[in-house]
Amino acid sequence: MVSQAEQSAKPHVVIVGGGFGGLYAAKALGNSATQVTLIDKRNFHLFQPLLYQVATGTLSPADISSPLRGILGKYRNITVLMEEVTDVDPESKKLMLRGRELDYDTLIVATGVSHFYFGNDHWKTTAPGLKTVEDALEMRRRIFVAFEAAEKESDPENRKAWLTFVIVGGGPTGVELAGAIAELAFNTLKSDFRNIDTTEAKILLIEGMDRVLPPYPPELSQKAAEALVRLGVTVQTQSLVTNIENNIVTVKQGDEVQQIPAQTILWAAGVKASAMGKVLEQRAGAKLDRAGRVMVDPDLSVPEHPDIFVVGDLAHYAHQGEKPLPGVAPVAVQQGKYVAKLIHQRLAGTTPTPFRYDDAGSLAVIGQNEAVVALKSLKLTGAIAWFIWIFAHIYYLIEFDNKLIVMIQWMWNYFTRNRGARLITGESSLVSVDVDADGNYAAAAPNKSPVEV
Amino acid sequence: MVSQAEQSAKPHVVIVGGGFGGLYAAKALGNSATQVTLIDKRNFHLFQPLLYQVATGTLSPADISSPLRGILGKYRNITVLMEEVTDVDPESKKLMLRGRELDYDTLIVATGVSHFYFGNDHWKTTAPGLKTVEDALEMRRRIFVAFEAAEKESDPENRKAWLTFVIVGGGPTGVELAGAIAELAFNTLKSDFRNIDTTEAKILLIEGMDRVLPPYPPELSQKAAEALVRLGVTVQTQSLVTNIENNIVTVKQGDEVQQIPAQTILWAAGVKASAMGKVLEQRAGAKLDRAGRVMVDPDLSVPEHPDIFVVGDLAHYAHQGEKPLPGVAPVAVQQGKYVAKLIHQRLAGTTPTPFRYDDAGSLAVIGQNEAVVALKSLKLTGAIAWFIWIFAHIYYLIEFDNKLIVMIQWMWNYFTRNRGARLITGESSLVSVDVDADGNYAAAAPNKSPVEV
Repeated sequence: MVSQAEQSAKPHVVIVGGGFGGLYAAKALGNSATQVTLIDKRNFHLFQPLLYQVATGTLSPADISSPLRGILGKYRNITVLMEEVTDVDPESKKLMLRGRELDYDTLIVATGVSHFYFGNDHWKTTAPGLKTVEDALEMRRRIFVAFEAAEKESDPENRKAWLTFVIVGGGPTGVELAGAIAELAFNTLKSDFRNIDTTEAKILLIEGMDRVLPPYPPELSQKAAEALVRLGVTVQTQSLVTNIENNIVTVKQGDEVQQIPAQTILWAAGVKASAMGKVLEQRAGAKLDRAGRVMVDPDLSVPEHPDIFVVGDLAHYAHQGEKPLPGVAPVAVQQGKYVAKLIHQRLAGTTPTPFRYDDAGSLAVIGQNEAVVALKSLKLTGAIAWFIWIFAHIYYLIEFDNKLIVMIQWMWNYFTRNRGARLITGESSLVSVDVDADGNYAAAAPNKSPVEV
Repeated sequence: MVSQAEQSAKPHVVIVGGGFGGLYAAKALGNSATQVTLIDKRNFHLFQPLLYQVATGTLSPADISSPLRGILGKYRNITVLMEEVTDVDPESKKLMLRGRELDYDTLIVATGVSHFYFGNDHWKTTAPGLKTVEDALEMRRRIFVAFEAAEKESDPENRKAWLTFVIVGGGPTGVELAGAIAELAFNTLKSDFRNIDTTEAKILLIEGMDRVLPPYPPELSQKAAEALVRLGVTVQTQSLVTNIENNIVTVKQGDEVQQIPAQTILWAAGVKASAMGKVLEQRAGAKLDRAGRVMVDPDLSVPEHPDIFVVGDLAHYAHQGEKPLPGVAPVAVQQGKYVAKLIHQRLAGTTPTPFRYDDAGSLAVIGQNEAVVALKSLKLTGAIAWFIWIFAHIYYLIEFDNKLIVMIQWMWNYFTRNRGARLITGESSLVSVDVDADGNYAAAAPNKSPVEV
């Protein structure tokens, strides 16, 4: 074990956030001539690309999460702190935590983004987003409660609203959610109910641009849309959600306005920078883009603050006038590793080169045997793409402890087409099919002193 | 699909509760000449014997749960209803649900039991019990938050309180929890922290009787206690908890009174019948025992109500002056199957024989390679007992969809000694290490507007 004196002689790198950017920076600094503190308010790293599988009842939260201490415990120079950062003072190089301070020599901010409702934060209750484990379990609860409520509903209009699922946003998350819910309705749950036919469910994917997966090559967007339609999803592009009220979604497509009654509305559109962006703006004079992301220098540092770096989704990195890099895991991983290397280079007295993103390609999954893959010039769809998608994800999970279980779980689901994790849990886990006076989704039903079952 | 007319001609069996008793009754009535409705307020069957593994971070809730519709969907004569029962009217043979009624010909009540605090229900917040998935996740959260809080605590006394785990009740659940927490502290988490030595944790198992596992043969209780001590648990028998206040447990052993400061207190003592017991007392004149369980006739029916049966933990079945059967899964399974068979026999005009419990033996696990097994005259301990315990549980899980995953998970944990599911989640998942003015555990820390990490 390194003594305190020895440790304090080493430069102290503080990393805020244990997502892909922060975690890979920490790993790359493991057992190096630095002292590292990784701060996260959660005690685990979340493999976010698979979070939609938790939301739709295929995987459990622990299948896609790894305890940060478990991953980093072996590096004796790394301390994990389950804490919250409230402020930063670049002058004195101090980080403010709840009730105490922490000195740093180098600061890496990797706090990511959350959902953005385009100024309509009150839609959040009706249309939850998907960023945390709790978000995923809430989505899962709503999806499965909807089928239960439909089963009990005698009014055909209300039943239709319970069987209508609106997914707002046609990016990878929206496409994955829509595909998974379609598989639930048209396959997994088909024989489970007595009063409803789950294949009557309507799954509507709404996208503002002219195609789903806008950042992907157009022909793959086309293939993805076709695959969604095959699965039973209604894809509606060039459509904007202008209102969500009383569980009615107002959708504007050109001049046409639709009112869609839907009890389950899922939000997969828009990102907003985490609050650390604003903190860096105020304290370090950082420039933010419209989404609140921090504009970084070519070496990912905050301009005029060579000891403060921003990596991952919170960083706005635009290389020579190009579009900013997308908020995906590979960018965050490469940026985290880059900054770790840069710190080593500075310690060694060598001059670092600017960050360059090595784009290995894009992947999105639509359903069983349905995926789209764009690897540089190679474009694939269907079962081959699906297997590439599976193995790409397993490859990333390999580094932690979950690979085996998740692979088995997928194989199992693949052959049985089953979804074992469709539990309705949480504090409002009683079938709260009640709709309040305004017709809104009643998140927690009033307790009518029922008998404990 | 059976038509409504055909269905209504068949006797309608209503089962309340989807635990072991209710589920096995339903399965045994599947595809028979009855119409069956199974009511549960949850949408899944919970394999409760493994719930402590969810509480201690080895398994996920979905690993030990199976959607009721998934299990029963193949039986076309069974309808699953996610609902709550509020009352029953034996005169008109009606069951009252939230906002509607249901007619029955035969009623099977299998609503189980919850924890009992011996009249001290206010201890519940400080010392949660273990019956539901939510209970398990709350225990898990507290156990892992305790280590995180200890890591941050500078005061030695407070740190000691965070590293003290008191388990009240030395039955199978208490023994399993104590063993699992000891394995966490002395093994899994050993290298994870920097400021604390987790092997300094104190795990205290308190039992009122003169030995742990009181219903088991005395020599096995002795072996279990020895195994617990080997794992690092302090076993204290003939001790009663007389107060829990300000996170101090008052324990009385003979004339000696101890005050134990402990931030994590887990309740594994005492059961209380679910509210359906009281309902049957009021409506059907049922006699209840001291725990509120329903005294049943030799055929498990409520006296003078041959069409109302009680099975599982809620039933008090004492065969010819013997002690009542214990509240364990095999009893509930056999009782559920028995009542299903009795219904078939009545329909066939044959005379049922009284219920007889076929006791295959008792099992309890203490830790890795440590278990005790009493099979009729055969008594086993150590690794052999542990493997019997594993396979007995896998055998029960086989009937549903979880066997494979859980087996793999166990194998994985067995070889790696890892616990991947040690996530701190839930609404109060922020490190709420704050203790309120009275020194009590602050379940939800006041939000100090921290930065989103």
